[in-house]
Amino acid sequence: MGGGEIETLIRLLSRLPGLGPRSARRMALHLIKKRETQMIPLVEAMEKVLDTVKTCSVCGNLDTVDPCAICSDVRRDDGVICVVRDVSDLWAIERSGAFRGRYHVLGGLLSPMEGTGPDDLHLSALESRVRSSRAEELILALPATVDGQTTGHYIAERLKDLNVRISSLAQGIPVGGELDYLDDGTIQTALRARG
Amino acid sequence: MGGGEIETLIRLLSRLPGLGPRSARRMALHLIKKRETQMIPLVEAMEKVLDTVKTCSVCGNLDTVDPCAICSDVRRDDGVICVVRDVSDLWAIERSGAFRGRYHVLGGLLSPMEGTGPDDLHLSALESRVRSSRAEELILALPATVDGQTTGHYIAERLKDLNVRISSLAQGIPVGGELDYLDDGTIQTALRARG
Repeated sequence: MGGGEIETLIRLLSRLPGLGPRSARRMALHLIKKRETQMIPLVEAMEKVLDTVKTCSVCGNLDTVDPCAICSDVRRDDGVICVVRDVSDLWAIERSGAFRGRYHVLGGLLSPMEGTGPDDLHLSALESRVRSSRAEELILALPATVDGQTTGHYIAERLKDLNVRISSLAQGIPVGGELDYLDDGTIQTALRARG
Repeated sequence: MGGGEIETLIRLLSRLPGLGPRSARRMALHLIKKRETQMIPLVEAMEKVLDTVKTCSVCGNLDTVDPCAICSDVRRDDGVICVVRDVSDLWAIERSGAFRGRYHVLGGLLSPMEGTGPDDLHLSALESRVRSSRAEELILALPATVDGQTTGHYIAERLKDLNVRISSLAQGIPVGGELDYLDDGTIQTALRARG
C-alpha cells in the first residue's frame, strides 16, 4: 500500500507507546486525510520541538531555554527540591499547582530487574546540587511502587549526612476514592497512616 | 512546559484518533527522548507521505502513483469491483489475500444522522465506471451496520438497470466465534442464512 511510504509511516507509528498495528493504521489514514489541518501542523510542531527543546542542565526538565523556566524563575522557592522520576511526573505536579519550589528529574528509578543502577540516574548531580544549594528540604515524589520505594530509600541513605530534610509524598486514599474499589495495600497503608 | 512548543505538540497529538491528553503527553515525551530513533524518522516518513501519496483518480485508493498499483496491475481481474467504505477496509481485504479484482472506495457511508448524502460519496464515479468498464460483478463489502446496509441498498437500487451482478459479503459467525460470546443479531442472521 502506498508504494512503501504509507507502510513506513504505519510501522513508525506502531512503535509509539500505546499504539499497535491497528491503531497505527487508523492514525496514518487519519493524518493523510486531514493533511492540511493535522499532518502538516504536526510535522511543523515536531520540527519546532526538535529545533528548540533541550534538557535543563540544572534539573533535567525539558524546555527551550537552559536553565529551564522553572530553574530560572526567581519567584520560586530555592529551599525545597522535589525529586521526580521523569518529566511527566514534574508536569503532573505542576498541573496540581501545589508546589512552588525547584525540581530534580532522576531520569528513571533504580531497578535491579531492569538493570538500572545509581549511575544510570542523575544522582551525582542531585548530590552536588544539594551540597551547593540553599535547599533545606528534599521531597521524594516517587511512585508508590517497589522501584520507587527502593530509589527513595537509596537517596535518603546516600544524602543522610548532608544538611537537608528528606520527606516523601503522603500515601493514602486518593481524593474521591471509594473504599470498595481500592486495593488492599492502599487501605492498609491508609489505616496505618491514619490521623 | 517547553515554552509552548511541547504543549503545541501535545495538543496536536491529542487530536489524533484514540489519543487523549494523557496518552498525547506520554507520546510527546517518548518522541523527545527517542529523538534520533523515533522522532526524526517519523518526521521524515510524514514528509515523504505528504510529498508522494495521492488519491487514485480511478478507485479512490491511496498510493504514490495514479492510477494506483491495484488499478494498474494487469494481473488483476477487471470483471469484479469490490465496493468499500474506506481505504482501511481496502487494506483489510488486501491483507486477507482472498480478492484479486479491483476496488472502489466510497469515502464514507450514507448516514441521515450525520447528514451524509449520495453526493458526499464517490457514487457518480462508481456509476460511470460500471457503465464504461468490463465489470460483471460488484461486491458490496460494506460494514454490517445500519448505515452500511442503507448504503448497500441505495447502490443496488441506483445501479439495478446496469448490466452488473450485485453481491454482498456473507453474514454469519466469524471464524473461531464462540456462540456464547456472539450477539443475538449475529446468531439470528447465521441461523437464517444456514446452509
